[in-house]
Amino acid sequence: MFEDVLKDAVHRTEGGIAALVMGFDGIPLESYLREDSKMPLEVETIGMEYSVILKEIRKAAQLLDAGAAREVSIQAEKLTTVIRMLNDDYFVAMAIEPGGNHGKARWLLRQAGPRLASELGG
Amino acid sequence: MFEDVLKDAVHRTEGGIAALVMGFDGIPLESYLREDSKMPLEVETIGMEYSVILKEIRKAAQLLDAGAAREVSIQAEKLTTVIRMLNDDYFVAMAIEPGGNHGKARWLLRQAGPRLASELGG
Repeated sequence: MFEDVLKDAVHRTEGGIAALVMGFDGIPLESYLREDSKMPLEVETIGMEYSVILKEIRKAAQLLDAGAAREVSIQAEKLTTVIRMLNDDYFVAMAIEPGGNHGKARWLLRQAGPRLASELGG
Repeated sequence: MFEDVLKDAVHRTEGGIAALVMGFDGIPLESYLREDSKMPLEVETIGMEYSVILKEIRKAAQLLDAGAAREVSIQAEKLTTVIRMLNDDYFVAMAIEPGGNHGKARWLLRQAGPRLASELGG
């Protein structure tokens, strides 16, 4: 079920490359990478990096009394990443080409969030 | 000049609360907080937190071969933050109320980026 949701979101996003559901400990639960992708994305590496960043963001949000962090997007020269928190333990992320539809990715992850979270058992 | 740009951006963004130009070392160069803001934002604290996150993001972007990180947005329950890198040493950030115009903030920081960067001496 997780893979279907990830695949669907990647294919419906113009420029979508890959998506994954991952624990904050950096261990991926499920991932999907477009077969025709030209970017060699290393899911394991991405996982470790994201989880470090997200832990810092959660700490910061608490410290700043900004409430729970919900969504993060990072635009780099060659890659845009949209991340949505699912619960205290998991997040979902999508990687998009520069010039891809970042707003669509955000919207699709927002739509998929409750389904993924309930599948995780909340 | 920095303060004018920050103030202008905050006031032109629906829900804009505060903006600042800051070094990656967490030391603010200039900041602006709306006088009528109901959120008690601690610029110094925000600075330290942001700079830690941004350093992690820069490292991650490098490691993932995603190129230089350009823009980050973080949506938490009570606060949205849009951050734009200016050069290797400085970034500009704006804090917005939930429900504020996050897209407008992004666009205004993107417009202001080159001016701020050239003022910093690039």
